[in-house]
This record gives sequence, C-alpha cells and structure tokens, in this order.
Amino acid sequence: MGLYDNLRKIDPYVPGEQPQNKDVIKLNTNENPYPPSSAVLDVKERYNTDNLKLYPDPDIKKLSDELAIYFNGKYNTNLTKENVFVGVGSDDVLSVAFQTFFNSGKAILFPDVTYSFYDVWADLYKIDYDVVPLREGFLIDPEDYNRDCGGVVIANPNAPTTVALGLDAIEKILDDNSEVVVIVDEAYVDFGGESAIKLLEKHENLVVVQTYSKSRSMAGARIGYALGGYRLIKAMEDVKFSINSYTLSNLQIAMGVASLRDEDYFKKSVEKIISTRDRAKEKFKELGFNCPDSKTNFLFVTHESIPAVEIFEYLKTKNIFVRYFRKPATIANYLRVTIGTDEQMDALFKALEEYIDKK
Amino acid sequence: MGLYDNLRKIDPYVPGEQPQNKDVIKLNTNENPYPPSSAVLDVKERYNTDNLKLYPDPDIKKLSDELAIYFNGKYNTNLTKENVFVGVGSDDVLSVAFQTFFNSGKAILFPDVTYSFYDVWADLYKIDYDVVPLREGFLIDPEDYNRDCGGVVIANPNAPTTVALGLDAIEKILDDNSEVVVIVDEAYVDFGGESAIKLLEKHENLVVVQTYSKSRSMAGARIGYALGGYRLIKAMEDVKFSINSYTLSNLQIAMGVASLRDEDYFKKSVEKIISTRDRAKEKFKELGFNCPDSKTNFLFVTHESIPAVEIFEYLKTKNIFVRYFRKPATIANYLRVTIGTDEQMDALFKALEEYIDKK
Repeated sequence: MGLYDNLRKIDPYVPGEQPQNKDVIKLNTNENPYPPSSAVLDVKERYNTDNLKLYPDPDIKKLSDELAIYFNGKYNTNLTKENVFVGVGSDDVLSVAFQTFFNSGKAILFPDVTYSFYDVWADLYKIDYDVVPLREGFLIDPEDYNRDCGGVVIANPNAPTTVALGLDAIEKILDDNSEVVVIVDEAYVDFGGESAIKLLEKHENLVVVQTYSKSRSMAGARIGYALGGYRLIKAMEDVKFSINSYTLSNLQIAMGVASLRDEDYFKKSVEKIISTRDRAKEKFKELGFNCPDSKTNFLFVTHESIPAVEIFEYLKTKNIFVRYFRKPATIANYLRVTIGTDEQMDALFKALEEYIDKK
Repeated sequence: MGLYDNLRKIDPYVPGEQPQNKDVIKLNTNENPYPPSSAVLDVKERYNTDNLKLYPDPDIKKLSDELAIYFNGKYNTNLTKENVFVGVGSDDVLSVAFQTFFNSGKAILFPDVTYSFYDVWADLYKIDYDVVPLREGFLIDPEDYNRDCGGVVIANPNAPTTVALGLDAIEKILDDNSEVVVIVDEAYVDFGGESAIKLLEKHENLVVVQTYSKSRSMAGARIGYALGGYRLIKAMEDVKFSINSYTLSNLQIAMGVASLRDEDYFKKSVEKIISTRDRAKEKFKELGFNCPDSKTNFLFVTHESIPAVEIFEYLKTKNIFVRYFRKPATIANYLRVTIGTDEQMDALFKALEEYIDKK
C-alpha cells in the first residue's frame, strides 16, 4: 500500500462560481442584494480587536439566548438556549445534524431534486439514503415519506425548485416518522414559506435549520442554527465539541445578536425582495419563460423554446451569472436566478430581450 | 427503537473553563496575554460590513498565498497555495486531517500524554488508535513509533508536557512511516521549538499543522492551517468541501494576512513571553516546584510536597485559573500554567507564596 491509498476519496459539493470581477451581476448563489442592518456595522465599529487574544465563548450562549427570545416573540413558543445549536453557516449545522441523528443503519429519505449537499454529507458520513422523486410540478407528496427509514430531510421551501410545502404536509411527515429525526431546512423560509418552528413543542422528532446567509444578508458572516428539543440539541453539541470547541468568533456572535434586534430593517429588505420577485416573474413570463410559484429569493425558470444551458452561457458573456444544474435530467432545462436589486433585474431582462429578439 | 436510540453518543473534548468574571487571572487555556498586531485593528476598521451580504472566498486564496510566501521567506521552501489548507482554528484543520488521512483500518499512533483532542477525533471518526507511553521525563522516543500503523500524530512541542522533540527525531519517525501520513501539530512551536516545515520537500508523508491562537494572539479569530504536499492538501480540501464550503469570513482572512505582514510585532511579543517564562520557571523552583524545560507558552509544574489538585483549588479561590488534568495518572500531580504578563505572573507567585508559607 502506498501513501496515497488511504486518503478519503469523495466527490465534494461544488458551490456556485464566485467571480472576482466586480462588474459582474451575480445572480448565481442566492445572496441578498441588500446590506445587513446598520446595527451590524455598529457592532463592528465597537468591537475591540485586543479581545481576539482570548478564545470566544464555546457555547455561543448570547446568540442562542437571543434566538430563543426572538422566536418566542414571533411564534409564542417556549424555547430556551438549550433548544438552539449555532454553527458556521447552516451547512456546518446540517453536517453536524447528519452525523448526530442518522446512525440507525437504515436509509434516510430526501427528494431527488433538492439541495445538492444532502447526498454529499450522506456519502461523507457513510449514511445510506434513498432519494424520493418529486411529483408533477416539483411537488413533495408526504405520503411518499410514509415508510420505514432512518430519518427525513426536507428543504422547505425546496431548492432549487422554489416550491413551499404547507405545515399540514410537514406535520404528516413528522407523524409518520415519529421514531426518527426529521430535519426541515428552512434556508429560504422568510421569503414566503411557513416555518415549522411552531410545531417544535408538539413534535419532538423535529429539527428546524435556518441561516443568516439569505434573508439577513449575512452570507459572509457564517452563521446558521438549528432549533429542536433539548435532548437532540445536546447530542448535536456533543458532536460539535468532538470536532471543534470554538467555532464562531465573539464578533460573529455579536453581529448575529445585532441583526435579530433590528426587525424593522429585516422586514423591509425581505419585502423589497418579494416585490422584485413578483415583478421579475411577470417579466419572465412575457419573455416566454415558465416557473413554479416561488417562496424563495430566487426563481426557477425554463424557456418554452430556448435550452437553459444556451441562455446560461449567453448571460455569462454579458457578465451576468445565474446558476445551471446539469443534473438530474428533470431540471436540466431550468435556470436558478437569484432575485437581485431592481436595477440588476432590469439589466438581466435587457440582456434576455436582446438575446430572444435575435432568435 | 425509540427516537433517541440512534443519536451519536460520544464523550466530547472538554475545553478549559472560560470564566466570565473579568477580574480573573486567566492562565488556563494557553491564550496570549498580548493583543494581536495593530495591523489587525486596521483591517477591522477598513472592513465594509455591506460586503457581508456576499459569501466569502471558499478557497481562502489570499491567506493560503500569503502563508506560502511567509514560510518560503522563513525556511527557503517552495510552497504555493496548493500546499496550504486553512480552517476554523487548528482543531478544525486536525479534524479534517483525521478524516482525510486515517482510513487504512490500522491503528494510528500518538503519545499517551498529549493533546487530549486526538482520541476524541479518533473516536468520532471510528479510527482505531494505540497510545504510546512517553519515556522518563515525558520524552518521546522515535523508536516507539517504528511499527506497522495507520498514521502518526505528534504534538511538537508536546502538550501539556511542554517538551520539544528535535527535527532529527521527527525525521526518523517520518522515515520509519513513509507509507502513512505523519501529522506534526506545531501549535506552540514559535515559543522555542523547531518547525518541521523545512522537512516538507523531503518527506511527502508529512503534514504540519499550526495556529493563530497562541503566538499570533488571535485565539478569538479562529484561524489554523496545515502545510503539506499538494496531493494531501487536495484530499483535505475535498473533505472540507464535503462538510462546509464557506468556513472563514473575508474579515478573518484579511486579519490573518495582516498579522503575517507584521513580523516585528510577532517576534517582540513572542520574545516577551519567552523571557517571562524563563523568569517564572526560576520563581517556581524557588517555591519548591519542578517542571520540564518548556518550549511553549506555558509551564507544566509539580510541587515537591503539595498535591496539584489542592493548589488548583486554592488558586481558584484567589480568582487565578490554571489547568489541571485528572488523568492519565502520570500527570495527575501536575498543573499547566499559561505564561501571562509579568504582572499576572507576579500575582500568581504572591498567591502561591502566601499559600506555601501557611503549610
């Protein structure tokens, strides 16, 4: 055996391109086009870098506390910091959740078209999985998840399809799988979905995962979190403390708290994106595109006559980046287009009009 | 089977206490008592929080590049960014390294007294391991690592013993284990050890891990890195991109670059700690303590007549925190004392004098 024979071999997740050219219109990684709350800037201004000499709080107590208080106010729940796990973006949180919850040896279930990181984590942690085909119109049918399994992962709203599932359907999945953990990944829920947080007290098998990267305009701050019963959260903490005790800096923690305290700004920037999304949807229709009803900060569009990959390549030549997934086949003729500012969307539609006119 | 039967059960690493009381003299987690370079403050001042809306660079190119340049200047190596892996502190880096390199099914080797996170990662990733007893005086004998194994992990200088191994001994371990990866964990090397970085070109089985948490006064910034051959580093990158694509914020990356560029400040603050350490060692001897020759920013002390645990508990009542490890038995009568400022050490010795006088 040689030196390189025992390296872990795995096909990693491939994130969207991060072009360094500043002139690019970047509609390919579902970032928020608006800056975070000015309260985040204030926190940065006040932060004393001398304190970097000390380790941060490994328990991230201040942010866990604040998240519990925030959601208690929003959903009338009784969460405490023991119900909150915070990590380096929701990818870190989901990675720890997969390691913590899916050890039965049975296959876990998730849709065939969904966040393409789920099968990467399952492969990395040697978790068996079955993908469940979406129904017509990219719909998730809860009945398809009513079978013996090691756990369930549902992105709601789903990505890249943009389609949201009602809480009645989520509740049926929870009831049908009461002996295993059901993760509801709500990365995009603030753009029109309905959060399962209000189901937490009734369903102890539920873990809800959210992120600061989309609706809070803080993809660069790397903050995600899970909410669940304290026994599930404690098990996640034990796994986290077996990987890396100190994950978030105190500056990240303070920025996270500041964002939560500026609800007005949060609501306004979400509303702006929703209104741009509705306008963009109409415009796409006028140009011969179709898309499902989006509850996210992006649209999943397909053109009636022009192949998606051609539009994708053309837009790149115009310095406009959108996301194209070559597989699975059911979505190979779709483009995922992040909702940018009105100006960015206007530039996109101008380019598309020119292109389609020439066809 | 019930909901809680398939949770991952693991005994996590327990970090040193992080008392929230500001009056505490904190000599228990090997933090640096001096602030980071003022260049780090400058970076923070200039950082535009509006950019938090975007994801950071997943490849952390700027910092990888700068680290390669820095070490090429220091050791006359030919490193490029392809030889550098950056993570959320060296714990994150080591965790990824264990997952990436130790898949042979054979037991890996590390000393019985060393960083107590190694066996936690091995347990988490189901890696078999044998601990190798230290020799008299807490010495590592390279001959003890000359056996069929799945890999080797050596902290150099070792913790909590403070003892450094010469590069001749490291080279023997590398030669005897040329078909497996040897990780040399150099968290404390800047305080008097000799880095194995200069051995990288000759030994393709070597991976050197370092951190910003100790000598660069940036425990709170969460930056660690590994240096190695590009095939080993690429394999680590593949594992990282299967866990979390975006780990470090652009602010952390920029702070890491800034620290590297202020070599004067780095040297001066390391020298100050070494000089305080030498003075503290003499003072401990006067008070009836013994300790090995330390090449780290802490001392590992044992008293000739008073049990370590009693001194530990007494110091706590004086708001002075040091670290005490109950096991293994060979170190149960030792205390690990971080080197603080001269003022902090004076306060420690005043408290110890009072205590020992009363005995």
